[in-house]
Amino acid sequence: MTVSDAELRAMARARELGATVLGTTTPNPAVGAVVLAADGIVAGEGATQPPGGPHAEVQALAAAGERARGGTAVVTLEPCAHTGRTGPCADALIAAGVARVVVAVPEPTSLAGGGADRLRAAGIDVAVGVEQAEAETGSLAPWLTGVREHRPQVVWKVAATLDGRVAAADGSSRWITGEQGRAAVHRLRATCDAVVVGSGTAVTDDPRLTVRDADGRDAARQPLRVVVDRRDRLPESARVRDDAAPTLVSHAADPAALLAELFDRDVRRVLLEGGPTLAAAFLRAGLVDEAVVHLAPKLLGAGPALVGDLGITSIADALSWETVDVLLLGGDVQVRLRPTRHTGGRQSVRRGS
Amino acid sequence: MTVSDAELRAMARARELGATVLGTTTPNPAVGAVVLAADGIVAGEGATQPPGGPHAEVQALAAAGERARGGTAVVTLEPCAHTGRTGPCADALIAAGVARVVVAVPEPTSLAGGGADRLRAAGIDVAVGVEQAEAETGSLAPWLTGVREHRPQVVWKVAATLDGRVAAADGSSRWITGEQGRAAVHRLRATCDAVVVGSGTAVTDDPRLTVRDADGRDAARQPLRVVVDRRDRLPESARVRDDAAPTLVSHAADPAALLAELFDRDVRRVLLEGGPTLAAAFLRAGLVDEAVVHLAPKLLGAGPALVGDLGITSIADALSWETVDVLLLGGDVQVRLRPTRHTGGRQSVRRGS
Ligand SMILES: NC(=O)c1ccc[n+]([C@@H]2O[C@H](COP(=O)([O-])OP(=O)(O)OC[C@H]3O[C@@H](n4cnc5c(N)ncnc54)[C@H](OP(=O)(O)O)[C@@H]3O)[C@@H](O)[C@H]2O)c1
Ligand SMILES: NC(=O)c1ccc[n+]([C@@H]2O[C@H](COP(=O)([O-])OP(=O)(O)OC[C@H]3O[C@@H](n4cnc5c(N)ncnc54)[C@H](OP(=O)(O)O)[C@@H]3O)[C@@H](O)[C@H]2O)c1
Repeated sequence: MTVSDAELRAMARARELGATVLGTTTPNPAVGAVVLAADGIVAGEGATQPPGGPHAEVQALAAAGERARGGTAVVTLEPCAHTGRTGPCADALIAAGVARVVVAVPEPTSLAGGGADRLRAAGIDVAVGVEQAEAETGSLAPWLTGVREHRPQVVWKVAATLDGRVAAADGSSRWITGEQGRAAVHRLRATCDAVVVGSGTAVTDDPRLTVRDADGRDAARQPLRVVVDRRDRLPESARVRDDAAPTLVSHAADPAALLAELFDRDVRRVLLEGGPTLAAAFLRAGLVDEAVVHLAPKLLGAGPALVGDLGITSIADALSWETVDVLLLGGDVQVRLRPTRHTGGRQSVRRGS
Repeated sequence: MTVSDAELRAMARARELGATVLGTTTPNPAVGAVVLAADGIVAGEGATQPPGGPHAEVQALAAAGERARGGTAVVTLEPCAHTGRTGPCADALIAAGVARVVVAVPEPTSLAGGGADRLRAAGIDVAVGVEQAEAETGSLAPWLTGVREHRPQVVWKVAATLDGRVAAADGSSRWITGEQGRAAVHRLRATCDAVVVGSGTAVTDDPRLTVRDADGRDAARQPLRVVVDRRDRLPESARVRDDAAPTLVSHAADPAALLAELFDRDVRRVLLEGGPTLAAAFLRAGLVDEAVVHLAPKLLGAGPALVGDLGITSIADALSWETVDVLLLGGDVQVRLRPTRHTGGRQSVRRGS
């Protein structure tokens, strides 16, 4: 499979485009697409629009117009071959006259599958699997997790001091991290369909859990706010019950049950915002797909730990993660991680869900 | 004060040169020097040699030879004007015929001071204070701390999981961090005059505390190994008592007393390697100048905390640090920090110690 540098650049850009619409496309995948004209110059860009709106390829083709003819479409997910709320993307690519289609992730459902075959049958050159892993762990992860595991993707976010305290001994935790770190959390919330906390956090911190912009105003689109509160400890006056965003108070017995409940509500990407007890329950169940840890350059020496008991007694049994990237946000260090050991069938692609 | 780009580059290089000899010059400062020829090209480099050997400027002048004439000497510390074991560096610069001398840090002792004045009296153009803060926090810090506070510089190193555990619940801690992180610790040890642990660490981990190379062989030069063991808990068979390096078992009552004891032995840079109880004692006393924290991408959920009780109950009272830099060592994150609040007189330069 030969792929040109221009196509690889276009694929990186397509992944970026997909990431820009993360949180707005659910329950559809957040796909990105770039159309290169015959001379290799970018002619159009697109990303999945909210349900009912055009798919990424169709948007990119529209932007490219006649320049798509003889060109190449680069797209993070195999173009669909079925007619859903929009027509098949494969047909749109054929009609636009592209000579070649470069795909990262093959379509994992039989319902929408067959796009590459239909393109090839129309004489188009098709490459599938280009930088597939990068696309799978990026903005396609929520949707792929849904297809493969019938549950939402779970991103665990936690802010702590360098010595791993999420609050001081007296319970105070405002603010552990600086302004840049808090702004990053609001941007992260905006990419999710639901924000989840345990009753402990909801009662102690009384957070609003809304997405706010730089001026502190609530954003137009808000993820579902979820408090897991099996003993009805959440007071009626809790701020999370205001009307700034929808709220679910769940009695789910365990993380798997909670995720099933959320999946049924079309949630595909969950931000688990703590606290340590609920996070530990998710970690023990092997139900964290990504962690975003903010560490402030502070020491407390006491206070609730970053994560509750995991049932681990020896260093050899520590939960082991892969460091994805490290970012400095002001003086705070943001570490993004993915588990290297993972329960569940993430590695295998189930076809025909 | 006008300083050219070539001089600033030379100053950065001089700081680097000083850092290469950190740990070998004690009790003298680890100075770096660069001689630029009249045309601005680097003609010679030097760094302080072990006690009795040439100072940085003299080494750089020797390397430059005749090309020093009419050139510029760039040096991290003001050249001395007194005759110690070596002749005055100011005189050497005058004899070499340099036209200009660029200095970062003014000499803080009256004994060695007066170098800039002597150079100016000889008609040499002298600039003092160029990127002074960078030089002061770099390889000159151990010596400056000695001059200003009559104690060694203290660098605290700790390796923990992301959730701030320095060992698992059963006490196992080998290995929390990966190979790259451990190699970095050996390089760090090599820059210090002493490596300090509490009796808890010495008893639990039975470490050797030597500097080892990539093949695990003991280096030729070894810092003093120090165990603070006030109740004589360290067994005779402890590995730290082997003859690979000198060892001090101290009964010092508190960190200040320990540092005084080490200062008297000409120790100027201490690596505090833990554990959490002794580190907390140093932090409470305001006696940590720099922290090097290695965080492994692992979670334990239990085990001894990164640092013991600091007497802090509220987030507003957290010890607050400045993040100096962040490095990825394999999957481990290394964060280097300096306290933003510091007890003691670090900010003021005492003259005439
Ligand atoms: N810095 C940060 O990023 C951050 C984030 C969040 C919290 N915090 C701090 O964390 C502290 C609160 O800690 P926490 O551990 O009490 O908070 P938590 O994890 O939010 O809440 C714990 C509670 O969640 C409920 N829960 C629901 N489902 C559960 C399950 N499957 N497994 C276990 N528990 C479940 C339990 O109560 P029921 O049995 O009644 O349901 C449990 O008592 C506060 O000090 C807060 O400031 C800090
Ligand atoms: N991952 C790492 O970087 C790292 C590094 C070191 C240790 N550790 C772990 O830490 C654990 C040991 O913890 P620890 O806290 O017991 O170790 P520690 O801090 O090395 O030792 C504590 C002992 O130091 C003595 N001490 C001497 N001067 C002191 C002073 N001024 N203030 C307080 N104590 C003083 C005390 O015993 P006396 O009163 O008898 O003198 C005290 O019990 C082990 O599990 C070890 O693996 C991890």
